[in-house]
Amino acid sequence: MQTPAKKILPIMTTKKLTTMIMTAMLVSLSACSHQPVSTSASLQSTLITPQAKGQPDAFGGARRLNQEHSAILKASIDDAHAKNVILFIGDGTSDSEITIARNYLVGASGYLKGIDVLPFTGSYTTYSIDRDGKVNYVTDSAASASAWATGTKAYNGALGLDRHGKVHQSLLELAKANGLATGNVTTTEIQDATPASLYAHISARKCYTPAKTAELCPTETVQNGGLGSITEQLLKNHADITLGGGAQYFAATATAGQYQGQTLLQQAKARGFRMVNNLNQLQAIDAVSQQQPVIGVFAQGNLPVIWSGPKSTLGGNQKPAVSCQENPEFVAGTPLLKEMTAKALSLLSSHPKGFFLQVESGSIDKQNHKANACGQIGETKQLDEAIQVGLEFAKQHGDTLIIVTGDHAHTSQIIPIKANSPGLTVALKTPIDQSVMAVNYATETGDSQAHTGVQVRTAAIGPRAANINGLLDQTDIFFIIRDALNLESIQK
Amino acid sequence: MQTPAKKILPIMTTKKLTTMIMTAMLVSLSACSHQPVSTSASLQSTLITPQAKGQPDAFGGARRLNQEHSAILKASIDDAHAKNVILFIGDGTSDSEITIARNYLVGASGYLKGIDVLPFTGSYTTYSIDRDGKVNYVTDSAASASAWATGTKAYNGALGLDRHGKVHQSLLELAKANGLATGNVTTTEIQDATPASLYAHISARKCYTPAKTAELCPTETVQNGGLGSITEQLLKNHADITLGGGAQYFAATATAGQYQGQTLLQQAKARGFRMVNNLNQLQAIDAVSQQQPVIGVFAQGNLPVIWSGPKSTLGGNQKPAVSCQENPEFVAGTPLLKEMTAKALSLLSSHPKGFFLQVESGSIDKQNHKANACGQIGETKQLDEAIQVGLEFAKQHGDTLIIVTGDHAHTSQIIPIKANSPGLTVALKTPIDQSVMAVNYATETGDSQAHTGVQVRTAAIGPRAANINGLLDQTDIFFIIRDALNLESIQK
Repeated sequence: MQTPAKKILPIMTTKKLTTMIMTAMLVSLSACSHQPVSTSASLQSTLITPQAKGQPDAFGGARRLNQEHSAILKASIDDAHAKNVILFIGDGTSDSEITIARNYLVGASGYLKGIDVLPFTGSYTTYSIDRDGKVNYVTDSAASASAWATGTKAYNGALGLDRHGKVHQSLLELAKANGLATGNVTTTEIQDATPASLYAHISARKCYTPAKTAELCPTETVQNGGLGSITEQLLKNHADITLGGGAQYFAATATAGQYQGQTLLQQAKARGFRMVNNLNQLQAIDAVSQQQPVIGVFAQGNLPVIWSGPKSTLGGNQKPAVSCQENPEFVAGTPLLKEMTAKALSLLSSHPKGFFLQVESGSIDKQNHKANACGQIGETKQLDEAIQVGLEFAKQHGDTLIIVTGDHAHTSQIIPIKANSPGLTVALKTPIDQSVMAVNYATETGDSQAHTGVQVRTAAIGPRAANINGLLDQTDIFFIIRDALNLESIQK
Repeated sequence: MQTPAKKILPIMTTKKLTTMIMTAMLVSLSACSHQPVSTSASLQSTLITPQAKGQPDAFGGARRLNQEHSAILKASIDDAHAKNVILFIGDGTSDSEITIARNYLVGASGYLKGIDVLPFTGSYTTYSIDRDGKVNYVTDSAASASAWATGTKAYNGALGLDRHGKVHQSLLELAKANGLATGNVTTTEIQDATPASLYAHISARKCYTPAKTAELCPTETVQNGGLGSITEQLLKNHADITLGGGAQYFAATATAGQYQGQTLLQQAKARGFRMVNNLNQLQAIDAVSQQQPVIGVFAQGNLPVIWSGPKSTLGGNQKPAVSCQENPEFVAGTPLLKEMTAKALSLLSSHPKGFFLQVESGSIDKQNHKANACGQIGETKQLDEAIQVGLEFAKQHGDTLIIVTGDHAHTSQIIPIKANSPGLTVALKTPIDQSVMAVNYATETGDSQAHTGVQVRTAAIGPRAANINGLLDQTDIFFIIRDALNLESIQK
């Protein structure tokens, strides 16, 4: 378990309270004069620690609020520009996935030390727009990522295009054009929708390779004058550091252009990429830039998940409760999301102009599709631990805006342990509460559970974080980050 | 449709922005000096208007944020005590029910003019505690209402008791003991869990009448020295005004005590209650107090819902899309929730010490249990319109804290229109978007869908509203309201 958050989430003392209030006064006064203020010292005072304060069955024992919160929240509002932005995405992750993970990992009255400590919280809508202009109430990860990455609604399956096929610039492209350092980190294939939305513009998210593009997106191949497959676009339009899975696609061969006949791995090396394939190689990297870019691919496909457990079954919630297990397929040398996050932060933080870093725990979604509660919880744990790394960084770099959200909602629900669900269910024995939690997956009878269309939780801390509350649309994320980083609309 | 909200949700003008910023400065400066401030003029500036700003399929067209929000949010933070508190509860209502209603009522890119405009948003946990001390991850409305009403976790089915059977004082009791006016309004039977949590303390929520209490809660009957049935407790421990359904239970007869042999209606009249049974009679009431209390019961059971529609069926989402209809059983003379809210506010607002008012749209839950999406949406509309009435009141009375939440989450999910759900589904033709929304109910194969255990949305505006963000437990609501109203712990 990650522990640094303990240091930054102290129990309230009189002295600390005094410091907080002083900070509140200073920040308030600064804001009153309408001068953006730097709040490099403010982060410590704005994290919340929503742990139950006593025995949950006693009067007041379950309450989470430490004290009257107005002054503290006021002190955490900061309209200065941010130097750095870290965007954490839990794929297919909203309140239900978070509550399931909290109940299992820290107990119902506990709190997650990354996800649950951010002072500004709200939700956003995630609908996509079909090619015919109709609202689609259930987005996929491609359309949703396009929305937050470009500020423009896409249709399901499309990356970085609007419904008319027009390309829209991504946050990563904009950050690069403005001279910032950039990072793109995931537990899935680096060609998967969320990371790809930052570098690719293509009509079908599955067009990973030249061959697949010829098949599914024929007008977009290099030979047809298009931008090429997703992996080819990555090589031309990359972050300084890109980490995740998807090594297998680098064995594909370019069918046109300068690198025709070479594999994408050969092309990557020819273009100057350093390719790393395990944690040790990653740790040995000591600098990244556009001129010295790094791609880390640590699995042929998605990274293995950290936890496995029995899949849900019909009537599973009424069977004996089970415990989650570590996944034996999580092989040595595979980095955890928190390790990739820490390394990316360490490399990007030296950049004088700041950085934009996207960090995705992508298999929360994939395990939800598979109706695997333990897999889902383990990957939510990965997300939470990566956020804790981000918070520890922001403690040292108060000019960092951290945003935490999901790209869309998903199937999993907590239901009564005796419910007769028509779906796939599992009863989990919760280690902290020593009780039983029943999880239900019931949106599909086929192999893969479906996304859902409910608005998704947003949370933030740092400069401009006050914008991440109330009701937003996921396209707002693009503008909030663009404006927080004061990025000008420069085409590269 | 309710229209007054239009007046208080204006498009931003330079002049208005200047006023906002001035207010922000004043409030910030006031807060810096740690003097509670009155913000009777601040409410107008803190409502948010998260309407899409353009064509949702265009760059930036779907964004909801008007402008950089830091100064506005800061201006809306007010640590003064509140004179009045209105607590709006959507039974079984969280993000999913809200998104479903928004999509249908105003379109995916629109916003609900009550639910969606509150500047402080977060979520709370709703787990209950079984009698044996185990965490129960899925609460019922009785345990959840007991939690927010008394600050103490109850077990499912219990009202105003902890797991050991100890009585805990409710917010309504505390408000009365401190001399405030009180109101308790619902669309369900007034004996239902949410309203009953404010006046009753009993081990089983179904013990509405003396006979039912003898059957289910035998040690708690009047003849056995107990507090008596829920309806009898209402007559002894009432709000100044109590409105909803449940007339049938007043035909029950007391089996012990001073009113033995008389119906509860006779007892109510003997105790000085004015009983009203339709909207006209309600409108004729011109004053309420503890000495002149009013009970309005406008139906034998729950009030009729305003909308009906085809129930969901297996495979229903793949059938032709349907539209919601007005419910022909909503008979003339039945008040809408917004009408009951307006009347209660009008009567309570004259009280010099302020008031505590609970307003519940209770049948959002009941229609969710019935897998009736249109019924659910109509009752969410009722909730939203009642909140608009509350906001209009708070515009005139800035010392009013408004909190909006649900007591627990529920079954309904928005799924892809082509999903093959194992549950009951319906395809709704959305009137604004002219698209199709599929709603899924799949937690139970029996007659009644199940509650779910996900954390529930919270939102607030007014003094102390900044406490309603981040992660809370529902027991925090008791303490936030108690402290906002500066209520002393007086036993009546």
